[in-house]
Parts: sequence; structure tokens; C-alpha cells
Amino acid sequence: MVKLLDTTLRDGEQTPGVSLTPDEKLWIAKKLDELGVDIIEAGSAVTSEGEKEGIRKIAGEGLDAEICSYTRVMKKDIDEAVDCGVDSIHLVVPVSDLHIQKKLEKNRSEIINMTSDVVQYAKDHGLTVELSGEDASRADISFIEKVFKNGIDVGADRLCYCDTVGVLTPEQVRNDLTQLVNKFDVTVGLHCHDDLGFAVANTIEGIKAGCNEVHVTINGLGERAGNAALEEVVMSGHKLYDMDFNVNPKLLYETSRLVSRLSGVALSDNKAIVGDNAFTHESGIHAHGVLSDSSTYEPISPSEVGRQRRFILGKHTGKASVKAILKEMGVEADQEQLTQVVKRIKDIGDRGKKVTTADLKTIIETVLNVYDEPRVTLEELTVVSGNKVTPTASIELLIDGKEVIQSGTGTGPVDASIEAVGKAFSELGEIHLEDYKVESITGGTDALVEVIVKLKKDGKIVSARGARTDIIMASVEAMLEGVNRLITEE
Amino acid sequence: MVKLLDTTLRDGEQTPGVSLTPDEKLWIAKKLDELGVDIIEAGSAVTSEGEKEGIRKIAGEGLDAEICSYTRVMKKDIDEAVDCGVDSIHLVVPVSDLHIQKKLEKNRSEIINMTSDVVQYAKDHGLTVELSGEDASRADISFIEKVFKNGIDVGADRLCYCDTVGVLTPEQVRNDLTQLVNKFDVTVGLHCHDDLGFAVANTIEGIKAGCNEVHVTINGLGERAGNAALEEVVMSGHKLYDMDFNVNPKLLYETSRLVSRLSGVALSDNKAIVGDNAFTHESGIHAHGVLSDSSTYEPISPSEVGRQRRFILGKHTGKASVKAILKEMGVEADQEQLTQVVKRIKDIGDRGKKVTTADLKTIIETVLNVYDEPRVTLEELTVVSGNKVTPTASIELLIDGKEVIQSGTGTGPVDASIEAVGKAFSELGEIHLEDYKVESITGGTDALVEVIVKLKKDGKIVSARGARTDIIMASVEAMLEGVNRLITEE
Repeated sequence: MVKLLDTTLRDGEQTPGVSLTPDEKLWIAKKLDELGVDIIEAGSAVTSEGEKEGIRKIAGEGLDAEICSYTRVMKKDIDEAVDCGVDSIHLVVPVSDLHIQKKLEKNRSEIINMTSDVVQYAKDHGLTVELSGEDASRADISFIEKVFKNGIDVGADRLCYCDTVGVLTPEQVRNDLTQLVNKFDVTVGLHCHDDLGFAVANTIEGIKAGCNEVHVTINGLGERAGNAALEEVVMSGHKLYDMDFNVNPKLLYETSRLVSRLSGVALSDNKAIVGDNAFTHESGIHAHGVLSDSSTYEPISPSEVGRQRRFILGKHTGKASVKAILKEMGVEADQEQLTQVVKRIKDIGDRGKKVTTADLKTIIETVLNVYDEPRVTLEELTVVSGNKVTPTASIELLIDGKEVIQSGTGTGPVDASIEAVGKAFSELGEIHLEDYKVESITGGTDALVEVIVKLKKDGKIVSARGARTDIIMASVEAMLEGVNRLITEE
Repeated sequence: MVKLLDTTLRDGEQTPGVSLTPDEKLWIAKKLDELGVDIIEAGSAVTSEGEKEGIRKIAGEGLDAEICSYTRVMKKDIDEAVDCGVDSIHLVVPVSDLHIQKKLEKNRSEIINMTSDVVQYAKDHGLTVELSGEDASRADISFIEKVFKNGIDVGADRLCYCDTVGVLTPEQVRNDLTQLVNKFDVTVGLHCHDDLGFAVANTIEGIKAGCNEVHVTINGLGERAGNAALEEVVMSGHKLYDMDFNVNPKLLYETSRLVSRLSGVALSDNKAIVGDNAFTHESGIHAHGVLSDSSTYEPISPSEVGRQRRFILGKHTGKASVKAILKEMGVEADQEQLTQVVKRIKDIGDRGKKVTTADLKTIIETVLNVYDEPRVTLEELTVVSGNKVTPTASIELLIDGKEVIQSGTGTGPVDASIEAVGKAFSELGEIHLEDYKVESITGGTDALVEVIVKLKKDGKIVSARGARTDIIMASVEAMLEGVNRLITEE
């Protein structure tokens, strides 16, 4: 069993622009505990009062995981950690000459002495101590050994090798970590960064070399290019090397979503395991393959990580996936109609457009000659905006023939209009705007603006498009198109 | 020298939801050629009429790169490729029993025969043939060899091993690719997917095993979790293993931006090499470390990949790091000014916004009073819009202290505002709006909107930017910024 030290709440929160409130930190910590990580690095207690409050809350929650605080080689950092009631510290000591000289302006023997002092101090305060070598991958391995040996002599419980700037190769992992694992009887951990795309491969290589603890973050969050992604380490270790972790993979997706939402760091669609497209198929060949046997184009089943498979449409779409989607929608089409639908989908794709749920419905309506009267229509929209005016919108909708009037304000006229529309929609139940996107506008202020929205109701998601020369009208049109699609299927 | 086959325009475009117009494909192909990729897989000619048009345009452009089309093992695919005038085909033949049986419903000997037929057919049409084993990583290596040998016997020029579902390990790369490279005299390529986070590490391992061509995509775009990212393969190969590619790394960033913009697939902030945060440093220890010696926290220099270092300041910023940053910018500030700068930075941070270098410069200009008074300033703007209202704007500008009031109407509120602004500008001579552009807006209706305008006066052109959460205000701000630049330089 390989232990995971999750550092989402420390390295992850150090992501430029990310700031979590104490309650948000606690929320994430509870989810990490449920997921099954062994150690939660909850933050760096010395950072600020808010940070301390967050760590204290997490330490006081009675979670199964060990709760840890990052510290520098300074007694005041230890005091703050003790004050928060954590179980352990992740004590980070620069070990490369570059960091020792340029950052700390010290020499090697000063580092040894500082480390002995601080480890002893932490042990005297009853803390478990994980002693980490910062920038170890660019350090002299014999000096790393010396720092580690001195630390263990005064009570350090675990060791960790940090690839602080992400320049480690799998070969160096094999050499250095094998040497350290053989030399020391205690747990040896590995902490990797992804600056050159090797964080996950190096982490797995470390486990193969005998590391029995590795550092990870949810979504690979962290400074610069981030840390090794927990979800990728767990699933690749499991699938490719039969490695065991205490983590429940079925909770990976919801944990990822929570961290992405609270941190405000969105994921690329093509992020492995947890990205929007990881289990999405568009092209004809792939969709056809997956429909006959999902393993043809899926290395793991989406349900293993708490997800669902998704088919979407575009110019690469073939008949197989259209048929599957139509079936899901309860629509039956003959061969000729199917051919027609596929052709029209490809036409939209060729124009460089995404094919939205609403587009497909329109195509089906046209080809199969079925049309539902929309339940929601726009009567009147008025927006006032300016530099000395709070952007304000009023809207009148007809919902099932009933007049609904609402108003809203916002950071701009579009925001205000969408707020007014959203309020009016509350007549229909809880509808969330999941995504709002404007395609690049080029060519002038009277060019066509294309807005795509994603709306969600009761777990169902539709996408819809509005295209106008007026961005406000395009946004409102997309919202109405989307909501009509959502509710006509009910 | 390792060759790169860039498949951004085929695998990348197969990303669910991505559709490029023929002109957009050409635009990307020209950029890839400038970047220095050896082979451009321009698409799959059989997909649609638009796809064919795109490939034909690229093949006819006279680029240095070899232009290639993806094909299945079908003569009609070859016909379409020939019709587009490409140099070569990437002929993909399923080689795992799973794909052969479940997807094609064939047996092994049928695959051998089909392949021979189609390779011969392609050679008869004068095409260079790269013969790829689909799902090779889950196939019987002796069968892969058989397919390859048969292909070469009838004229295949190159071979490729595809890890179609991303389940390859570095160990298997070493075994299988070494075996194939030793067995065949022709170029052996490798095509990796990132489902388990190993695409880049496996691609590099392939090169170490003797592959002299690898398949990559810009930004790691591609089906599901995508393909090996070109920028990560090039920079890790270069930095960690001294590998040589024909690519100019200084163009990596702008190529990445172009592909992201045209494909509409945004990158995570923590994407290696090209993500927003890859060369971004927080205030505090990291910023200080980087300022004394950038290598302390940067594995490569941002300029190597055509980027700039960025310091993100936030609400936790202290005087010390601001002072250090100001010093680097050649700005001297007294204690009172420093306090003011820090306060304004904290104000932005408190509103949950990132503080960019540009923001910092504006703050410094304001606090230190080191800028030219703009000749044109906005006093008041009011815009009324809606579905039953002619979008109308009124504007009051101060031009050299003189009040100028104008109004305008348009196809939308932005158009109306710009018309009003333009009328007011006529006081200053003939000023033309040459270009108006809005960067893609993603993330919500209250996201920052960036407007870029190009203004022309007496043959002189300037571009200027406005960034607000309100698209109208961003547009007006950009117009004012632009006109002030035009006239203060007179």
C-alpha cells in the first residue's frame, strides 16, 4: 500500500490567484478524507490568520487522515503549526547549493545545524516530522543523505525528495530514490512538479523504486505547471502497475469538481481522467467502436472514476453515434432520415461551428418534420447601461402563455440581462447556467456574435446557441433556446 | 534529429466539440510550418466536404512540411486523399484482436490482405505511406511485425506504433519499440495518448528506444485526454535528454495561443510550458527567489519558449516584494508611494481579481504620476438597448478640456456606443476604426472581456486594448486608449 500525502490545500492553494476561505479549506479536507488520502497537508500555518483558522478547523474535525502543516526551517513556523493542533509537519529544507546560497544566503553546514535544531524543537512539541529536501533533484545526493541522516538522528520520522522545479527524469528517480530507500529504514516520499510534463511518470517511477509515500494534488494544481495529479497517479498506478492506494476511485470525479469550483481553476477539456472530454466521443469511428465494445476506445470505464460516457456531434460524427443519441432521446429515424441528419450535422461542423443540443433538435425537427411550440418566448427586453449607471435589465417573458416580468443588475449589460432571465426562469424550477461562452468576434462592432450557453436542470444538461449582431440579444436568445430544450423533454 | 508529425489538425480536430473551417485549418498549418514541424497531418479527407477543402488548401500552399492525410484501410479514403493533393497518407490499420474483431468484425488474415491491397493502391497513386498499427499497445507484437512486414513488402515507407487508448508503460515502449526499430530499416514512429498521464514520458521513452519520428499535437489536443503535447515533448526532450528537433521553441507559445483560440479549447492555468501560470510567480518567497536568480524556481527561461515572466500580486502582497518588483522595473518609489501601490493592489485582490504586470504598471503610473495626461477622457456614457428599442448611446467626452456630446444608434449596444464615440472623435480629424476584436469569453457572464481595436489617422495605425467585465465599457475604453495614443504621439 502506497500512502498519499495530498498537498492540494498547500501547494495547490499557492497557485497564483487562488485563495480559499477557512470554510472552503475544511470542505475540501473533508472530501479528501472521504476520498481516502492518508495525509492532508492543510496549508502553511505561518501564512496568515485566515490560513491558521482553516488549518485549525481541519485539525479539529476528527478526520481519519493525518493532518499536516508545511513549515520552513524556522521555530516560529513550528509554533504556529503546534498552535493549530496538527499531527505532523512537512518541514522543507533547501538542499541544492543554488537554493542554499541564492535563496537563503547560507552554507551547507548552517543548513545541517538549522535542521537539527528545528527537527528537535518539533519533536519536543510532539509532532510527527516529515523532513523534505527542497530542490533535491538539483542537489548533491551525498549532501541530501547527510541532511536526512542528521534529521533522523534527532527524531525525524519520514523523509521526502522534492523535484521543486520539475526537472527530474525517470532515470534519476531510479538512481536517487533507490539509493535513499536502501539507505534509510523510514518512509521515503517523493514530491514532483510538472514543468516538463513528467510529474506523473516520475511519481510512478518513485513508487517502483521503493517510495512508500508520494505527494499529489487534485487536478495537478500547484505553482507554475503544478504537481503530480492525484487522479492520474492513482489510476495509472492501479491500471498499469497494480499498485494499491487507500483512495476510492469512484470519488475522484466529484473531488476534482469540488476543487476546481472552489479554487476557480478550470480544467482543460482534455485533462486526463477528470477533464470534460476524457470520456466523450465525437468521431464516427470511435463512437462506433465504443458502442460495440467500450474497451475499444476507453482504457478505463467512466464509472470506475464516478463519471458517465458522453457522445457529442460534429463533423466527425458517423451514423452510429447519431443513432445512439436519437435512441436516448426516444426518436426513431429510418436510414434515409439518419443520412440526412448526419449530413446536416457535418454541414454545421464544416462552418467551424459546434453542434449544440439545440442544433440537433432543430435538425431532427426539420428532417423528421416534428415541431414543439416553445413554452418560453421573449416579449420585451430593455437594458440600460453606461459608466455612471448600474447596468440594469428588465425582461418580460411568456412562460406557458403566462406573463412573467423580472429585472436584474450586473457587472455589465449582458450580466444584468442574464440575471433577469435567470430570475424569470425560476418559475420553471431550479435552472443553472453552467457555462457561458462567446466565440471570438472579429471584423467590426456589427459582426455576428455567437453565444453558447450550457443550462442544467435536475442533472440534465443542454447546450444552445444564440447568434446576433447584438451580444445581449444573442445571450438572451441562447438562454431561451436552451431552456425550451430543457423543459420540452420533461 | 527526431522528426515530428503534428496531428493537431486531425487528432486534435477530432477533439469533441472542435470544428475548424478550411481557412482556420490553413492558418494553423502555416503556423505549424513556421514552427518547424516536419509532417503536418492535415485531416482525414473522407470526413466531409469542408475537411477536403481545408486539406486541399494546405496541400496547395507550398509549405516546407510534408502534408499528410489520415486514411482508414479503404480505397475510397485513398481516393479522397489523392484528390486533395497530399504528399502522404497516415494509413491506420487496427492490429489488436479487440479492434479487429469488435470494431471491424474481421480476422487477422483479412487485415493482412486489406492492408496489402490498400498500401499497393496508395503507392500506385504516388503517395508516401506511413503504415500505423492502431491499438498496437494492446496487440500481439508478432502480429504487428507481420502487418508491418507485409506492408513494407508492398511499398510502405514508414511505420508507426499507436497507443490508441493511452495504456502504454515506459517498460513496454522500451520492449516493443526497441524490437521494431531493430527489425525494420525504415522510420519507426510512435503515437501516444494521455488517458493515464503518460503520453509525454512514453513519447520520450520511444525516442530513447530509437524512434526517429513521433506524433504530437499542440496543447496535447486530441480525443478524450488528448495526445502527447508537442511543446512538452520538445522542451523535455531538449532540456532533459539533449534531443534535437527542427522546431523553433520561441514560436511555441504563439502557436499554442493560435490553436487554443481557433479550436476554442482553453488550457488549464497549470498546463506545462504554455499554461497561464507556467512562468507566473506569486509574491513572497518565490518572487523573491526568482528575482535574485530566476533558476531557483524556473526550470527553463520563459523567453526560450517565446513568453515573459509574470508576477501575480494579490491581497497578501507585502511592501518588500512590491519594492523588489518595482526595482526590477527601474522604478523608485518612496515609502508613502509604496504604501499606496500596495493598497491599490490589495483592492484589486480583494475583489477576487488577478493583478497583472499591466495592472501594476497602471497603478504605478497613477501613484507616481509618471504618465501623460490623456487628451480625451470619458465623462459620461449611457446606453439603452433591448428587443423593442433601437440600441442608442449618448456619450460625453472631454477633448482637450472641451465638452463634446454625441449620440449614435447601431445594430446592438456596442455598435451604437462606438458610433457615438466615433462621431465625437471627428473633432480630432478623420479617425477610422480599422479593426475591432473581442477575445473569446469563457467562464461566465461576469468574466473579464478583452476588446482590441485598431485605429487609423493620417496613415498611422495604433492598436489598443480595453478590459472590463462590461463589453460596452471595454470597447469604449479601448477606443479612448487608442485615440489618446494616436494623438499624443502627434
